[in-house]
Amino acid sequence: MAERIPLSQLGLGAGKKARLPRILYQHGVGTGSCLFLPYDQGLEHGPRDFFANPPAADPQYILRLAREGDFNGIAIQVGLAEKFYWEYAGELPLILKLNGKTEIPPSDRALSPLNAAVEDAVRLGADAVGYTIYIGSPAEHEDFTQFAKVRRDAARRGMPRFVWAYPRGSAIDAKGGRDSFYSVHYATRIASELGADVVKVNFPHTEKRTGVPAPYDGEFSGEQAIDAVVAAANRTMVLVSGGEKAGDEKLLEKAEQSMQAGAAGLIYGRNVWQRDHDAALRLIGRLRDIVTKHPAP
Amino acid sequence: MAERIPLSQLGLGAGKKARLPRILYQHGVGTGSCLFLPYDQGLEHGPRDFFANPPAADPQYILRLAREGDFNGIAIQVGLAEKFYWEYAGELPLILKLNGKTEIPPSDRALSPLNAAVEDAVRLGADAVGYTIYIGSPAEHEDFTQFAKVRRDAARRGMPRFVWAYPRGSAIDAKGGRDSFYSVHYATRIASELGADVVKVNFPHTEKRTGVPAPYDGEFSGEQAIDAVVAAANRTMVLVSGGEKAGDEKLLEKAEQSMQAGAAGLIYGRNVWQRDHDAALRLIGRLRDIVTKHPAP
Amino acid sequence: MAERIPLSQLGLGAGKKARLPRILYQHGVGTGSCLFLPYDQGLEHGPRDFFANPPAADPQYILRLAREGDFNGIAIQVGLAEKFYWEYAGELPLILKLNGKTEIPPSDRALSPLNAAVEDAVRLGADAVGYTIYIGSPAEHEDFTQFAKVRRDAARRGMPRFVWAYPRGSAIDAKGGRDSFYSVHYATRIASELGADVVKVNFPHTEKRTGVPAPYDGEFSGEQAIDAVVAAANRTMVLVSGGEKAGDEKLLEKAEQSMQAGAAGLIYGRNVWQRDHDAALRLIGRLRDIVTKHPAP
Amino acid sequence: MAERIPLSQLGLGAGKKARLPRILYQHGVGTGSCLFLPYDQGLEHGPRDFFANPPAADPQYILRLAREGDFNGIAIQVGLAEKFYWEYAGELPLILKLNGKTEIPPSDRALSPLNAAVEDAVRLGADAVGYTIYIGSPAEHEDFTQFAKVRRDAARRGMPRFVWAYPRGSAIDAKGGRDSFYSVHYATRIASELGADVVKVNFPHTEKRTGVPAPYDGEFSGEQAIDAVVAAANRTMVLVSGGEKAGDEKLLEKAEQSMQAGAAGLIYGRNVWQRDHDAALRLIGRLRDIVTKHPAP
Amino acid sequence: MAERIPLSQLGLGAGKKARLPRILYQHGVGTGSCLFLPYDQGLEHGPRDFFANPPAADPQYILRLAREGDFNGIAIQVGLAEKFYWEYAGELPLILKLNGKTEIPPSDRALSPLNAAVEDAVRLGADAVGYTIYIGSPAEHEDFTQFAKVRRDAARRGMPRFVWAYPRGSAIDAKGGRDSFYSVHYATRIASELGADVVKVNFPHTEKRTGVPAPYDGEFSGEQAIDAVVAAANRTMVLVSGGEKAGDEKLLEKAEQSMQAGAAGLIYGRNVWQRDHDAALRLIGRLRDIVTKHPAP
Repeated sequence: MAERIPLSQLGLGAGKKARLPRILYQHGVGTGSCLFLPYDQGLEHGPRDFFANPPAADPQYILRLAREGDFNGIAIQVGLAEKFYWEYAGELPLILKLNGKTEIPPSDRALSPLNAAVEDAVRLGADAVGYTIYIGSPAEHEDFTQFAKVRRDAARRGMPRFVWAYPRGSAIDAKGGRDSFYSVHYATRIASELGADVVKVNFPHTEKRTGVPAPYDGEFSGEQAIDAVVAAANRTMVLVSGGEKAGDEKLLEKAEQSMQAGAAGLIYGRNVWQRDHDAALRLIGRLRDIVTKHPAP
Repeated sequence: MAERIPLSQLGLGAGKKARLPRILYQHGVGTGSCLFLPYDQGLEHGPRDFFANPPAADPQYILRLAREGDFNGIAIQVGLAEKFYWEYAGELPLILKLNGKTEIPPSDRALSPLNAAVEDAVRLGADAVGYTIYIGSPAEHEDFTQFAKVRRDAARRGMPRFVWAYPRGSAIDAKGGRDSFYSVHYATRIASELGADVVKVNFPHTEKRTGVPAPYDGEFSGEQAIDAVVAAANRTMVLVSGGEKAGDEKLLEKAEQSMQAGAAGLIYGRNVWQRDHDAALRLIGRLRDIVTKHPAP
Repeated sequence: MAERIPLSQLGLGAGKKARLPRILYQHGVGTGSCLFLPYDQGLEHGPRDFFANPPAADPQYILRLAREGDFNGIAIQVGLAEKFYWEYAGELPLILKLNGKTEIPPSDRALSPLNAAVEDAVRLGADAVGYTIYIGSPAEHEDFTQFAKVRRDAARRGMPRFVWAYPRGSAIDAKGGRDSFYSVHYATRIASELGADVVKVNFPHTEKRTGVPAPYDGEFSGEQAIDAVVAAANRTMVLVSGGEKAGDEKLLEKAEQSMQAGAAGLIYGRNVWQRDHDAALRLIGRLRDIVTKHPAP
Repeated sequence: MAERIPLSQLGLGAGKKARLPRILYQHGVGTGSCLFLPYDQGLEHGPRDFFANPPAADPQYILRLAREGDFNGIAIQVGLAEKFYWEYAGELPLILKLNGKTEIPPSDRALSPLNAAVEDAVRLGADAVGYTIYIGSPAEHEDFTQFAKVRRDAARRGMPRFVWAYPRGSAIDAKGGRDSFYSVHYATRIASELGADVVKVNFPHTEKRTGVPAPYDGEFSGEQAIDAVVAAANRTMVLVSGGEKAGDEKLLEKAEQSMQAGAAGLIYGRNVWQRDHDAALRLIGRLRDIVTKHPAP
Repeated sequence: MAERIPLSQLGLGAGKKARLPRILYQHGVGTGSCLFLPYDQGLEHGPRDFFANPPAADPQYILRLAREGDFNGIAIQVGLAEKFYWEYAGELPLILKLNGKTEIPPSDRALSPLNAAVEDAVRLGADAVGYTIYIGSPAEHEDFTQFAKVRRDAARRGMPRFVWAYPRGSAIDAKGGRDSFYSVHYATRIASELGADVVKVNFPHTEKRTGVPAPYDGEFSGEQAIDAVVAAANRTMVLVSGGEKAGDEKLLEKAEQSMQAGAAGLIYGRNVWQRDHDAALRLIGRLRDIVTKHPAP
């Protein structure tokens, strides 16, 4: 189990010292541990994700839900931010997601193009920017280069960087796939090496071992894996995501394991808004309970 | 059926507040619902489109027709705008189409290059810029990156963005084609996510289901589909296009369905100018009647 | 037959109003119809083009010939312009050809790189810039993007744009080839759409119909085709080129047909300088006679 | 055996004259010969490298070790530098590694993307920048272009350039592989030609001769090879790296040979930190003894 | 035989008028005809070129040799220029070679990346810049674009351009190879068209006729070929290079033929420094004799 580092020991500059506490302490459960709502699936998967709960297709519904559920922030793309966020500015932190792609073309060479710049985030009053890195993709060169510019632009403006660290592409598929312990572990480390402040990862699947290198081809428990993943992030805060909609008990168990491992918080989208409004608020309540049990140091 | 949002509730800045009402209320039927004339086919398809009505090959004929038919705007490329629009400036809003391509090379990796910049639109007195996004193309990365620059350049100048949201490329062909409910629905959403003010879409064909993902492989009526498409645009205004020349009754029926679904207007090119002058004015009259019946809120 | 548009009705800005009349009226036959000498074959084909008349390998010989023949302008690349044009500045208008390529690599993906910029043309005292667009090439995206920059740079400096509109590449080869009525017609239109002031085209070959789309697969006379090509250029002036050296009577007949169709002039290179000095002057005399018969309106 | 060149005879400008002596004389054994600790393996190989000694996964552990072992500098990526280096600034020279890649995608076309810029190095108080060139890669063009910008940015700021000169890619694999005398010799020379101040190379393997050109297909001793490699660097200082963890006696023997050949120092990572803390300090002690025996002139 | 053009008749600007006479008249034999020493083989071929005469691996040895032999200039890459040239500044003109590549990756798509910029040449006190163009390569587009920037940067600073005009790539291999009369003739012309002041070519091999176009498939003497090559350069000065080390008599004969044909000078590297010091000086003496016999007009 990794020990979390207090914000005051991260050597942060003024801009991040203004914005990170606003996200972590002035919203959500207020303990420095947190809950985020990602809403970029309309771009990443298309409107098919909204058939399970049609009101979720409306960005206004989602922003209201994030406010009602007292999330620490919402992550959306620039088009929705321009049209909807101005009504919630000051009430709900915005993580402006800067890149994104559709699911339509093949993803063997996955690369997520920039749809917005850090200057858009500043203009829209965002408290952080979000960026998806596809670790292991053959397009890694362009991805790292693209992120380096985002990192520098954000550094110049004191803007925190949230990184979606996603193993992806043909080589990953051949080495255990995108959710293996190997690939999630590696992805987390890379986010830290390249300059993320916060990293979003999927819960590692230790049973996915086909093609992974040693020592990942050995036996590991889920707890060992999530502990290692959070440790690999060192001073980068870890958010564990829910992925596709799954059974609630399994989801809550992984949420608990993640927080115990030292994660800074949870980031759940489809598991939250692919159910009706009241059911969503009930699940949010249970997630808040878990987060509350694990305050930041 | 989606409810249209009044312009005053879109959080627009000064530039768009000057230009969008000029397009929507000071021209056309004057109710905020509208009719546009696209004339980029000389580039997209070549002069073969003009053999059906040879005068249509002359941009001056088309501009005069747009003025006579009291359209809300005309969409042309920079070369024609420079040579012909100055005679109509102040009388007919110009949507400067910024990108375009020929039909000659294969379109499996479709990408529409920029032929003009937002600064050209400002110089020429345009009230909006037009941009074609090829949703789902393997060149999506370059397309999104290219549009992001256009969006930012336009935002800095308060210039409204009209987006031609066209599913295209090999992956789209394998998943129901460019007119399926799936692809039109997805394309509309993406225009909204990426920052369109107005999106131009084709009427969805619900019968095109080969290769589409669930739930689009189920039964949907045309009305259900167009309702969902307009809803997917949320606060982005929807223009439904006519596509290739079709029978008039079918065309008018779809126009009516589109406006009922909450579309902001219609954008018909070949269906208008591939017939003689008087027949064109008669069809324009019938389209204006439909638009007039569905005023903006 | 297309009617030519007087310069005064083109809405030109000051820079073009200074330069185009200098080219069109202060040199050549002085009627606004014109004769140009292109000399970019040393780059495009290599010195093998000069074996037929060895003195033609010397740029100084060609510049002197253009002056003796009282051409309206000469089109050369930047290297030759820097070394030779200073001796003729003020006496013979220069069209600085900005791009060019060799014939050595395969042309299935033809793209002509920029060897000079509009600022070079200004520095060298040129009255226009020349640019080759390869219509229909799979590299069309890069070509259009490249030309868009040239167009904007030229617009900012009031510099006229001469466009070599050449169908080229694998898709063109499969659809009737580079000289078909279809491809020349389309290419001419594109030059107009993208912002050419003057377009150079080859005379269309109506018998090349293999693979062309309707209606180009029907019967057309050469006269019908050249009329349609000139009309497709609308307010862009058309120059018809001679292509490879051919029989003189055939060449003069096409020149006459082109001028009758409303072309603004002729642009002949190899047909002129691949013969000895006196024979060249004799042919130039006959071409001047044709041009003189068709003054600008 | 190559003779080392005193710093004062290298024609250095002020910035390098401030920074190189700080690295070479104010830290480490203080004789101008040196010992560096590279720690970019978390990015290059992933966290699997840390299973042999789990504390090594923590950058703070490594920085402390480098300080305890009195290294002349540590090489890390920008993310770790931002989060950890501020606690050691002024005590341990930082070589900010500017580029890096994962081991996941195929390396037949190896190219290491820039994750940071020289301006980051200045901001973080680094005394040098590090850059990996993949000699012989089919992506060499992009690599050289990328390095040229780094070199110029560094020159403008008086920042020394450390170059990891690594033969890599399909053509190298076909010509003796990445450790052959041929490829290491060539790589060293290239670093010098392109503007490295310090070059990091692997110890050449003279037995790898399959596919190498003459005269490398002949018999050479390890001593001859390392002598030639150091000579090929001419006025560029050579650091010999340890590569994968190997037996200690072999390692120390190569270290001795390298220093005798005129190398400026050693750069050992995994061989140092893939053992426990005390064992690491013991090895460091023996390496320091070797370095001390070979002071700079 | 081509007549050389006096410098005063080239329309040169001030910067070139200062630098070209410095190279051509203030060093070497002092008659405007010249002898250059190229030393970029450490990059282009690797250190294997130095085994024939090991001292040649040391740039200082080469610079001293160039000084002793009173060459008109030396061509080296930026890394060597920074480390070694400062000791010879003012005594020996520097042609900073701006691009270069290794021989390792396949050359079917040859392209030589920029390792330095014109501003480096200015900073280092160079009197000219050198650039390798690979004529006929499928990467010609990038090459021409890259050179166009160098040309403009140099023009702005009055810096002469030396162009290594080398036919290369798969299409050249299929059309007579890199040394055929066809390809050398074409390459020379292109250097002139694109803006070289001085062009370095290989002596054409008229017997290489497989795949060359007419009229190059006919019989030509070496004299006819070199005459045509020098003529194709028109006002660009021609330097004939020695290529791989060959027999001295053959080499001197070609040198004589080249100078008789109107070449401005000779540029010999390996033929000079792949022999011992005294033998090198003896050959230099004989080359100087030839050059002296053919002064500039």
